Amino acid sequence: MVFSSPVSATKIANLIKAKILGNKDSYAKGINEIHKVVEGDICFVDHPKYYDKCLNSPATFIIINTTDVIIPEGKTLLVVDEPFEAYLTIARHFRPFTAQYVAINSTASIGEGTVIMPNVFIGNHVKIGKDCIIYPNVTILDYSEIGNHVIIQSGTVIGGDAFYYNTKKTRDVWYKKMESCGNVIIEDFVEIGASCTIDRGVTASTIIGKGTKMDNMVHIGHDVIVGKNCLFAAQVGIAGATTIEDGVTLWGQVGVSKTLTIGANSVVMAQSGVASSLEANKVYFGYPAEDASIKRRELVWIKRIPELWKKIMD
Amino acid sequence: MVFSSPVSATKIANLIKAKILGNKDSYAKGINEIHKVVEGDICFVDHPKYYDKCLNSPATFIIINTTDVIIPEGKTLLVVDEPFEAYLTIARHFRPFTAQYVAINSTASIGEGTVIMPNVFIGNHVKIGKDCIIYPNVTILDYSEIGNHVIIQSGTVIGGDAFYYNTKKTRDVWYKKMESCGNVIIEDFVEIGASCTIDRGVTASTIIGKGTKMDNMVHIGHDVIVGKNCLFAAQVGIAGATTIEDGVTLWGQVGVSKTLTIGANSVVMAQSGVASSLEANKVYFGYPAEDASIKRRELVWIKRIPELWKKIMD
Amino acid sequence: MVFSSPVSATKIANLIKAKILGNKDSYAKGINEIHKVVEGDICFVDHPKYYDKCLNSPATFIIINTTDVIIPEGKTLLVVDEPFEAYLTIARHFRPFTAQYVAINSTASIGEGTVIMPNVFIGNHVKIGKDCIIYPNVTILDYSEIGNHVIIQSGTVIGGDAFYYNTKKTRDVWYKKMESCGNVIIEDFVEIGASCTIDRGVTASTIIGKGTKMDNMVHIGHDVIVGKNCLFAAQVGIAGATTIEDGVTLWGQVGVSKTLTIGANSVVMAQSGVASSLEANKVYFGYPAEDASIKRRELVWIKRIPELWKKIMD
Repeated sequence: MVFSSPVSATKIANLIKAKILGNKDSYAKGINEIHKVVEGDICFVDHPKYYDKCLNSPATFIIINTTDVIIPEGKTLLVVDEPFEAYLTIARHFRPFTAQYVAINSTASIGEGTVIMPNVFIGNHVKIGKDCIIYPNVTILDYSEIGNHVIIQSGTVIGGDAFYYNTKKTRDVWYKKMESCGNVIIEDFVEIGASCTIDRGVTASTIIGKGTKMDNMVHIGHDVIVGKNCLFAAQVGIAGATTIEDGVTLWGQVGVSKTLTIGANSVVMAQSGVASSLEANKVYFGYPAEDASIKRRELVWIKRIPELWKKIMD
Repeated sequence: MVFSSPVSATKIANLIKAKILGNKDSYAKGINEIHKVVEGDICFVDHPKYYDKCLNSPATFIIINTTDVIIPEGKTLLVVDEPFEAYLTIARHFRPFTAQYVAINSTASIGEGTVIMPNVFIGNHVKIGKDCIIYPNVTILDYSEIGNHVIIQSGTVIGGDAFYYNTKKTRDVWYKKMESCGNVIIEDFVEIGASCTIDRGVTASTIIGKGTKMDNMVHIGHDVIVGKNCLFAAQVGIAGATTIEDGVTLWGQVGVSKTLTIGANSVVMAQSGVASSLEANKVYFGYPAEDASIKRRELVWIKRIPELWKKIMD
Repeated sequence: MVFSSPVSATKIANLIKAKILGNKDSYAKGINEIHKVVEGDICFVDHPKYYDKCLNSPATFIIINTTDVIIPEGKTLLVVDEPFEAYLTIARHFRPFTAQYVAINSTASIGEGTVIMPNVFIGNHVKIGKDCIIYPNVTILDYSEIGNHVIIQSGTVIGGDAFYYNTKKTRDVWYKKMESCGNVIIEDFVEIGASCTIDRGVTASTIIGKGTKMDNMVHIGHDVIVGKNCLFAAQVGIAGATTIEDGVTLWGQVGVSKTLTIGANSVVMAQSGVASSLEANKVYFGYPAEDASIKRRELVWIKRIPELWKKIMD
């Protein structure tokens, strides 16, 4: 999340009741997760295992639960007991939950030629471009940005919360929601089928690239980046923070695991499960998804086991 | 289903045009399926194969299509030609279908601090606790009970009819709906993603335990019991009357068959299919889902078949 | 699509700016894809590979991008540079996109005894029969025809656009939507679960046969023909233009590929993937789905590979 204007170290420290170490005069431009941070950002870390990674990231501000580290030149440490709680406090402060009582919020902007059908919900600060069609019973939640010539079919939900939890099995309630303060960006000429769900980024954006088309009941997790001209058939599911490069085709009911990359122009056959990154320009099949020709040969080999058995017995 | 007050044997008999045998002075407390009945309940049976099971169940009233059985001490037989039709008559009498013309019914109760977004439907006799968020385009059907601090994301449907049919292939229309007169109970701190469906129990309750979190497009069948602190990733489907114990994790696109049990703290890997009950505290994978380490070794063995072939040929 | 009244060859030619060859006096009754055309229809073809097939089909009018063919007796050629664009022009002319601003359109007809719950959308020219129940948040799009005694549960979308694209990878936007001008026909006594999607036919009808029942989150692609008394469990997906004959059962999460046929009374086990046509009256399992008994034996053989290995080593 980028703040609407830079916020002083002191103001952040007061908000989360932190002790400031290092540079006290800097201004924070936003807050992000470790793999998304850019210069000027706040980042948080609560496990010693990740202290170094966070301190050496591009983040300018580090919310941390120790004073026993070397502060890199020019950076600001914000020391608290519970960095995750501090993150939640910042996220809620800059992206407060707003109870919304009207179906189309007045802070939304809707471009010329765009048709919004009945029973559609459009949240605060949503931007929709020109010549789009939003079919009945679609839900577009806060801060979503939709380009021009986009079609969204009925029942689809854009900008739902990430499925992303802080886990402590010592608590009565094990899972505590990581508040989502990111959004969804849908580029020009994208078409989304009926009853799809596209979750917003936790701190950054979930992006659907120009000209990509999805069939019905496709699920796109938080922080997923989908390239241009991709084609996703019905009931495909993509887990959080995965990257799908340009021109990828996923056939029906394919599942893709989190934080991996599928290379450009690849094709994944129906019902396959993608468990790790895949190279560009190939056809994949099976679970875990592999080169389709190898996988097909495996199916033939399985059918030859009885023959093998017979050969041994003879 | 529990009746709002006990109903006399005579009244039930008149309603379904039954002949009463055995104890004629008892009062029925409710009606339930054979595997759910408790003392005081009505139960129904139409196949000789199940006569004994039903007569010896805790049910106090047995709707049956024979007089040729020994009536257990104190129990009441309600004899009709078509016990299934008698069940439908009772279900429709005590849970009549109500045409609903308002989006939020006045018989629903909604707790303090709970936010109901636009385009939400809330049926008759629904109870929603405190500090919940119900996002736009959610449907909560009659008699659903929702605890405190519950979040339900857009497009989700709570309390739909069970997918449960009486089959007679001699009829023109083979499948006849078993009327659902149960409900859905969602406990405190549960979070449900976008476009999920949780069906109500046929005669009892579908229950989602405290602190359980679900991603988008999760389907929960009728009479499923989900424990506390479970985690279900996107596009998981659980068939009717299955029990998921506390702390179970189901990864994306897992399918679970009906009337089985998954033991506490188990983890089922993505896209697996659970065809029979699973022990607690293990990791499972594949279809049918088995111990993940065994299944992974199988995948390695399959890859060695060509080598085996070569060895034999040499 | 059938035109409301026959249209002269000249009028069609003017609309798409075509040169007329052959019979100039005929009247077109409708427009259809090659595998759906009947006498009197317009059909279009742009690839030399399919010229003959189209010319010899029952179509009376052929939109084509060549003059170098022999015109069959009595038929009419409409010669244009871009037959696909000509198709789009005709589809948009006879089924223009209508921005709809009311939830229940006045051109829809709704039968006696039918209950329409809140937040339902009913498009133009929709026909709904008698004694149906349409639950909250359902979307029924233009030209859908629904019989009597039909139940549609919450969140379901009937009549969405086909997922069907013209592909040209030389364009900036590779995929261009094939405008759907067909519809959905749902016969009597059909019951459809929550959050299902049934897409309309591209030029013809998607049909759900009498007495068929579907659980939640079932996806039915464009131009699918489902027979009578079928049973589809939750999260089943059926791709475009496939035929499911009478009495077929598909268990949970089954995927069915496009343009194939599943024979009457077949049963496909959960999570199977149907990649090619299946004979009637059998039980199928696996991916690709095969005779279930063969597939089950394969699973047993896989478990015997280590034993095979040991035998060879000894």
